[in-house]
Amino acid sequence: MTEAKLVINENPNKKTKPDPDNLKFGKLFTDHMFTMEYSREKGWFQPQIVPYAPVSLEPASMIFHYGQSVFEGLKAYRDENNDVLLFRPDENLKRLNRSNGRLSIPPINEELVMDYLKQLISLEKDWIPQAEGTSLYIRPFIIATEPSLSVAPSNNYTFFIILSPVGSYYPEGIHPVSIMVEEHFTRAVRGGMGTAKTGGNYSAGYNAQEYAANQGHAQVMWLDGVEKKYIEEVGSMNVFFKIDGQVITPELNDSILQGVTRKSIIQLLADWDIQVIERKISMKEVYQAYEAGTLEEAFGAGTAAVVSPIGELIWKDESMIINGRQTGELTKSLYTTLTGIQTGKIPDPFEWTVQVK
Amino acid sequence: MTEAKLVINENPNKKTKPDPDNLKFGKLFTDHMFTMEYSREKGWFQPQIVPYAPVSLEPASMIFHYGQSVFEGLKAYRDENNDVLLFRPDENLKRLNRSNGRLSIPPINEELVMDYLKQLISLEKDWIPQAEGTSLYIRPFIIATEPSLSVAPSNNYTFFIILSPVGSYYPEGIHPVSIMVEEHFTRAVRGGMGTAKTGGNYSAGYNAQEYAANQGHAQVMWLDGVEKKYIEEVGSMNVFFKIDGQVITPELNDSILQGVTRKSIIQLLADWDIQVIERKISMKEVYQAYEAGTLEEAFGAGTAAVVSPIGELIWKDESMIINGRQTGELTKSLYTTLTGIQTGKIPDPFEWTVQVK
Repeated sequence: MTEAKLVINENPNKKTKPDPDNLKFGKLFTDHMFTMEYSREKGWFQPQIVPYAPVSLEPASMIFHYGQSVFEGLKAYRDENNDVLLFRPDENLKRLNRSNGRLSIPPINEELVMDYLKQLISLEKDWIPQAEGTSLYIRPFIIATEPSLSVAPSNNYTFFIILSPVGSYYPEGIHPVSIMVEEHFTRAVRGGMGTAKTGGNYSAGYNAQEYAANQGHAQVMWLDGVEKKYIEEVGSMNVFFKIDGQVITPELNDSILQGVTRKSIIQLLADWDIQVIERKISMKEVYQAYEAGTLEEAFGAGTAAVVSPIGELIWKDESMIINGRQTGELTKSLYTTLTGIQTGKIPDPFEWTVQVK
Repeated sequence: MTEAKLVINENPNKKTKPDPDNLKFGKLFTDHMFTMEYSREKGWFQPQIVPYAPVSLEPASMIFHYGQSVFEGLKAYRDENNDVLLFRPDENLKRLNRSNGRLSIPPINEELVMDYLKQLISLEKDWIPQAEGTSLYIRPFIIATEPSLSVAPSNNYTFFIILSPVGSYYPEGIHPVSIMVEEHFTRAVRGGMGTAKTGGNYSAGYNAQEYAANQGHAQVMWLDGVEKKYIEEVGSMNVFFKIDGQVITPELNDSILQGVTRKSIIQLLADWDIQVIERKISMKEVYQAYEAGTLEEAFGAGTAAVVSPIGELIWKDESMIINGRQTGELTKSLYTTLTGIQTGKIPDPFEWTVQVK
């Protein structure tokens, strides 16, 4: 770690902290950010914490042309003792490296980056809001910076970590949303890059998302790209169903993101002696369960919302109202327990939370 | 056009022009670039020609996170009378707007942008190299610039046109390359964004491209994402086969780019009384033609190379040598005629070339 000593260049102009009751998602950033450069000759070098400021890039930089980028998202919380907690940050850094592999971006040293991340969070500790449901959203990302129009992996990259204090995902309390099953557009397919957290997977969904919003729905449910039959994700979250007492989630493949919340829910339910069945699940099966009256609960799972209950599912011309548009008991328990562990309000038997000194 | 008057801010520091015999692809840029901004309130505004210079963006700018970008590629040539010719620029601007639609980016005014483009090219005329095979590569592109981590279309965009003098794609003359048929990775799938010229489609192919290069092949041939059976593209080009006297190219679908060179080849061949059959074509069919001795020619078609002959095709464990690794007669004629029209060396009965005053 000596050759990669973090340099801290403190921002002399501290911003005023925002009103914790009026925080939006990802619009406002803290005083500092982490950056680190990569070149083929030096590898990753020059890790530093610097004032949050615009970045200057040549218009020919590859990120503007060929989409070579990856990112992560996780949250820091302040507990009642004013200690700072991260939720499974090792999982995010592992996934960042998996995404790097898929995008032909050189791997980062997870141990070093974990240390840099902690130093950044520690410096920005006062930016972590404390109101119910609020947190400091952490966005690590890597972009290709070589100024070249060759269609090939970049020789240069910049790694950033930026921080944004965010409000509660549910300012009026957790509530179910309406979801439209997407029949036309495809998010990802086998052999594609759907399992990587990379920009293209997100903008690929905008047409569908806009159409669904125009129809009055919160998000779309993505089906597999091959048969347009099996459920993959909902919006940018993983998805779970409770059918006839059983919890089912689509099994991982190379077009589904390996969610940290997804993994945590499976482990948490196992601890509760509820087995989660990871397998292919078709929309037809979900519809049949609905008709049979056994579709008990459905919810999305991801870092931003933690858990997002589905109150209505639109598939072709059918509308399925789930649990009378109320948040189900299991969904509610998962939300309470996960957010409880994340914020240090309830014990963490899994050692998921990492304290930042 | 009055409300969108182009402002020209001329660069006082002109660079030295490069050695025309040592031009690489897309590494060096001219003295000026075109930029134009977009906001929801104003639409596209502030068209200007300014010195080519780094762009300053907040690290939270959406382009760094969610891949919302589109681009185009075309070339300007200087003919023997020192006149400047563009090749079918209207087709590129039309396609840019189709890409915009798929990426939820607001459309540009094609007529206005054509005028801005011509003014830029006119100003940079001296940058167009004249040596055999050289040209000025034109790269229009649009990026999402709103600083926000919301997964949603940006409210702000910047449109750039940058210019790069480029050398011949074939400094040692046109020559066939070896291509590996990609069985594992997928470039695009129906309902995806494969028909749009957007960053994510290109970085999605890097893993496959690196693997093929390590095996000694120039590029990969992409199969369809659903059945992994039908040929879609080769590298970032469209593809043509000549089998038993017939010319066949994959029919357009929403995972194949609508190439301007592809379209021009089809029109040119029709003019030569050679009908191009646009239909699905499987690797199995190509292999069977190879075994039957009727696989006469195969080539990629795109702006950078114009035409790129395929000398060898690797599929599973089979190696198919095409036309004894020589450039086929038809491929050669197409290359000579297309580049001849583009550079004004031969007449242009199709009115494809547009002169810049």
